Amino acid sequence: MLTLVLADAELELVPQEVQGHPSVRAHARRRGRSPSAVLLDSSFHHPALRALPDGSRRGRPDIVHFFLVIALDSIANIEGQLETVVHTRHDQVLRCRPDTRIPKSYSRFVGLMEELLTKGAVPPEGEPLLRLESLTLGGFLARAPRPAVVLHEAGARHELEEVFAGRDEATVVVGGFPQGDFLHPPPGDLPRISLHGHPLKAWTAASEVLTAWRRSRPRRGPRTMG
Amino acid sequence: MLTLVLADAELELVPQEVQGHPSVRAHARRRGRSPSAVLLDSSFHHPALRALPDGSRRGRPDIVHFFLVIALDSIANIEGQLETVVHTRHDQVLRCRPDTRIPKSYSRFVGLMEELLTKGAVPPEGEPLLRLESLTLGGFLARAPRPAVVLHEAGARHELEEVFAGRDEATVVVGGFPQGDFLHPPPGDLPRISLHGHPLKAWTAASEVLTAWRRSRPRRGPRTMG
Repeated sequence: MLTLVLADAELELVPQEVQGHPSVRAHARRRGRSPSAVLLDSSFHHPALRALPDGSRRGRPDIVHFFLVIALDSIANIEGQLETVVHTRHDQVLRCRPDTRIPKSYSRFVGLMEELLTKGAVPPEGEPLLRLESLTLGGFLARAPRPAVVLHEAGARHELEEVFAGRDEATVVVGGFPQGDFLHPPPGDLPRISLHGHPLKAWTAASEVLTAWRRSRPRRGPRTMG
Repeated sequence: MLTLVLADAELELVPQEVQGHPSVRAHARRRGRSPSAVLLDSSFHHPALRALPDGSRRGRPDIVHFFLVIALDSIANIEGQLETVVHTRHDQVLRCRPDTRIPKSYSRFVGLMEELLTKGAVPPEGEPLLRLESLTLGGFLARAPRPAVVLHEAGARHELEEVFAGRDEATVVVGGFPQGDFLHPPPGDLPRISLHGHPLKAWTAASEVLTAWRRSRPRRGPRTMG
C-alpha cells in the first residue's frame, strides 16, 4: 500500500481578515454564499490576497483538484494500493476513501471542498467519502508507513523504484504549494529525494510516484510482446 | 521525441442547432458572449446536450484541460522530448508549443480554447503558442513518427517500455472522450495496446505514457543510492 501525501496544500476558506474585502464580497454574492463559507481562490480573490501574509502562494484549490483527480484515477488506486491524503497550511488532514469520485468540474469540486471545510466530512451523515481532522504533518507522518520519503528539488537524485523495491508499503510526501518551501517541514529524519533538477508541479510529482509504485509491483496476468 | 495525441477529444463551440436553447442562452448571457462563441460544456449545457446526437459524451473541455496540464508539465516536456497534439470530433488538430503555459484556472482555460476555436491560433498575431488546423486523425497519423500505437482497453496487454525500448521517437494515441469508442478509429495497422484490464481516464493513460517515455531514456547526471 502506497500512502501519497500532498503537504501544506493551499486549501482554506476565506480567512476572517479579508471576508469584508470587496473582491471577496462580490464573488460570494454572485455565488449566493456567505464570505466565510467560500473557498479562498487566487483566481477570484487576487486583490484580497495581497492583504494576507503569504498572499502570493495562498488560495490554490486547483492544485488539490489536479492532485486528487490524478491520484484517485490512477492504476494504483484502481488496484486498491493507494491511500490519498491532503494536509493543509492550517494543519488539517483530509483523507479520501479510494472509491471517492472527485468531480472533474472545477466549480463542483469547489462546492465539495466548501462542504468538507465547513462540515468536516462529506457526506456529513453516515460513512464519509472525505473526512477532515486537525492533525499536523509531523503527527500524521509519525504513524505513516515506512519507508517514508519527501520529494524535494534540493534532495539527492534518486528514482522512486529504488525506494519502493521489495517494499509492501511506503509513504511519499509531495508539496502542495505553488512556490516557496514547506511551511511545516517534514521531520528531518525522512530522506529528501529529487526526481529531476527542475522543480516539478505537484501533479507531475504525483504522477511519477503513482506510476513508479505500479512498476515496482509484481506484474499480473499474461503479457507477451510481438 | 514522443508525440502524444489525444484523439476524438470532445472540444467544440456550441453547435448551431442548440445555440437558441435556453440553457445555452442563459449561460452565454452570464458570460457576456454570443452563444456561437461559447465552448460546449456538459457542466453548463446538460439540457441542451440531450437534443444533440452523441449528447451524452459531448462538451468535455475538462478532459482536454487535464490532459494538456499533465502533458505540458511533464518531465518529458521539460526536457524537450514531447510534441503534444489534440484531435477533436470535428477533425481539427490543435498543436501546442512546448513552452505554452496552460492556465490552471478552468475558467481561463475555457477562454483560451474559445479564442483558439474562433480565431484558429493563440495569440492570433505573431508566432502562435497554440494553433488549429483542419486535419483528420488518419491524416495526422500518416505522417506521425513510428512506432505508433493506440491505447485501447480491448488491445493486447503490454507495457509501454516494450514499445519505446531502443527508439528515438514514437507516437501514442489516447482517446479524449468520456465513454464509448473512437468516432474516427485510428488506422487498423497501428497496434492497440492495453495497459490495464480496467478502462483508464485520458489523464491516467497520458501519465503512464509520459513516465514510461522518461524511464526508457538513458538516465542523465550522477545518481547514487544510500
